[in-house]
Amino acid sequence: MKNFTYYNPTKIIFGREAEKKVGTETKKYSNKVLLHYGGSSIKKYGLYDKVIKSLKEQSIEIFELAGVQPNPRLGLVYEGIRICRENNINFILAVGGGSVIDSAKAIAAGVKYPGDVWELYVSAEKNFAEILPIGVILTIPAAGSEGSDSTVITKEEGMLKRYCGHQDMRPKFSILNPELTFTLPAEQTIYGISDILAHLMERYFTRVENVDLTDRLLEGTMKSIIKNAYLVTKTPDNYDVRAEIMWCGTVAHNGLLDTGRIGDWGSHDIEHELSGIYDIAHGAGLSVIFPAWMKYVYKTDIKRFAQFASRVWGIDSYLNEEEFMALEGIRMLENFYKDIGLPVKLSQIKIGSDRFEEMAAKCVQKGLVGKFVELDSKDIIEIYKLAL
Amino acid sequence: MKNFTYYNPTKIIFGREAEKKVGTETKKYSNKVLLHYGGSSIKKYGLYDKVIKSLKEQSIEIFELAGVQPNPRLGLVYEGIRICRENNINFILAVGGGSVIDSAKAIAAGVKYPGDVWELYVSAEKNFAEILPIGVILTIPAAGSEGSDSTVITKEEGMLKRYCGHQDMRPKFSILNPELTFTLPAEQTIYGISDILAHLMERYFTRVENVDLTDRLLEGTMKSIIKNAYLVTKTPDNYDVRAEIMWCGTVAHNGLLDTGRIGDWGSHDIEHELSGIYDIAHGAGLSVIFPAWMKYVYKTDIKRFAQFASRVWGIDSYLNEEEFMALEGIRMLENFYKDIGLPVKLSQIKIGSDRFEEMAAKCVQKGLVGKFVELDSKDIIEIYKLAL
Repeated sequence: MKNFTYYNPTKIIFGREAEKKVGTETKKYSNKVLLHYGGSSIKKYGLYDKVIKSLKEQSIEIFELAGVQPNPRLGLVYEGIRICRENNINFILAVGGGSVIDSAKAIAAGVKYPGDVWELYVSAEKNFAEILPIGVILTIPAAGSEGSDSTVITKEEGMLKRYCGHQDMRPKFSILNPELTFTLPAEQTIYGISDILAHLMERYFTRVENVDLTDRLLEGTMKSIIKNAYLVTKTPDNYDVRAEIMWCGTVAHNGLLDTGRIGDWGSHDIEHELSGIYDIAHGAGLSVIFPAWMKYVYKTDIKRFAQFASRVWGIDSYLNEEEFMALEGIRMLENFYKDIGLPVKLSQIKIGSDRFEEMAAKCVQKGLVGKFVELDSKDIIEIYKLAL
Repeated sequence: MKNFTYYNPTKIIFGREAEKKVGTETKKYSNKVLLHYGGSSIKKYGLYDKVIKSLKEQSIEIFELAGVQPNPRLGLVYEGIRICRENNINFILAVGGGSVIDSAKAIAAGVKYPGDVWELYVSAEKNFAEILPIGVILTIPAAGSEGSDSTVITKEEGMLKRYCGHQDMRPKFSILNPELTFTLPAEQTIYGISDILAHLMERYFTRVENVDLTDRLLEGTMKSIIKNAYLVTKTPDNYDVRAEIMWCGTVAHNGLLDTGRIGDWGSHDIEHELSGIYDIAHGAGLSVIFPAWMKYVYKTDIKRFAQFASRVWGIDSYLNEEEFMALEGIRMLENFYKDIGLPVKLSQIKIGSDRFEEMAAKCVQKGLVGKFVELDSKDIIEIYKLAL
């Protein structure tokens, strides 16, 4: 086990009607907020009105910035920074999924930053200024940004998708009401599940030895998201199923499951190039890339893949046939993806091989990719090919 | 799943030599501390000197209060409160196990409390005053107090052992270095393991339905503590084994595994009367009481006990024989206790039946005991009898 520091002071308010508390929670930080969201969906089902009401009951002045899209764009972040600066706003309330929260975090980091906030995403040396506090009402369980210290933003020019993290980006509070996810389109639900499972697998495939407890916690969370993924396709308005998925999404990515280990994150990096260029859903890209990555790297640590097969997918232990077990586990994962309606091949999301070299080159711009195995651009092209 | 709020802002600093950071961490809160600890063990192996050095390097003024004993006493808490008041001390550094931390929390709650701090442990209505911040260097993985919001103190008169909890009692930081536990006497190691496993089982046995993720996390943590309990008896100075046990202890009791569910805590209450009156180790009392409690209550929810048997102890699923599974699980738990050297009968800790009625009466002073099944004094006497 590696040494670690774990500090996660985000207050989680979980349950039915939890969004009614947004006014009182926000008031602890500010009398003025930037309300940041995506499009019409929060208005369609009444959430927008509830949020406005709760904030106004606390006499909080509201500025709005809508229009966040999946793979959130740098342009809108600049707009948010401008609004906050011009109006002296020092609290950002994100109402939406990971894209909205990531966009809010970028704005929060940018308002007091003297340079171009994009520098914090691409520079090797990052000199953060004070980061504004943010609050969250989560509507899509997926990215885990509601409990994490990081953000991913896409720069329109070149569709460059980059990551940035800082302890002070963790939301002050995150409000999680599973009822808000009943009306999610089926596609968004399964893309979210794909992202959550990927967050768990990125952490699971580590070369750090003796990580027994976090292995077990990761396996348990994987089993829980897998079971409830099957259930939610049949009963999308079952509160308990939605609640399990929502809480899995936060637990998967709030840092606890990183303690003492080093995750891989290669599949995320490889997928970011796909969704960056083709603007596909991140969750769809992940279900295509992950099995391909596994097939390319499993021989590096067959025992770990065999353990994944045994403990997560219930594959019998054949102690002389660990490679068989490992491959069975990968097959089970692919079948799971197919069963809930996720793509497992690039052809299913209409992507061919024509830009593999470009994506691989962009992917390694900051160096080798992944920690379980360090991949160069040739490796990445092979993984894209395995996903064809 | 129940609605919940989860907020745990304790900073965990985990790893080799982590105690060297105590000075800089403490300095963030105060220039003056009450250093609170037990007896000679922290001096014997050099920890005391390291702590003093690290604090002095930050020019922190140190007042000391040693002498905390297992089942920490109210008298010493009063002494700590007096020292803090007289010297204007506003930070308490606990160096030790759960008893020291619990005592520090009591002092922290008492310094600004206008009445007798014991009121906070026994009154139905508790009006907390400001609670002083505390920091922790953990030396015994067991109670989980380093990540929890609660404390248990024993009043000498009548040996009354009572619980008190408040969000602000959570330590600001907790330093966990597994190396500090290499020299723990074998008995303290296994008593600690007993306490950790009990914390997990108290939460596991719930009547709340649809708690899938936390079930899995609890099962995973139980499996991890069980495995490493066997290992530590053979290799007490194996860093990774000690690290797993230490981190299990914190995760078991920091509130995450309570999210959305209601634990039982009957066995803890029943045991508190044992260790209160007979001054035995809490962990020894728990390994005696828990199997007896299980045998008394398992019929209330045989499926849950069967799940415990299957998922934690690997008992095959006999779907028409759930009661057989349930009993097998209890038997496996008892065997585990015996294997690592814990008592499973009152006779082994030299306690007879003569004070059963007195203990049962004290136990229900504040009402029925336990949530999985609500027990009255007659039930409790039956459980003590099953433990004979």
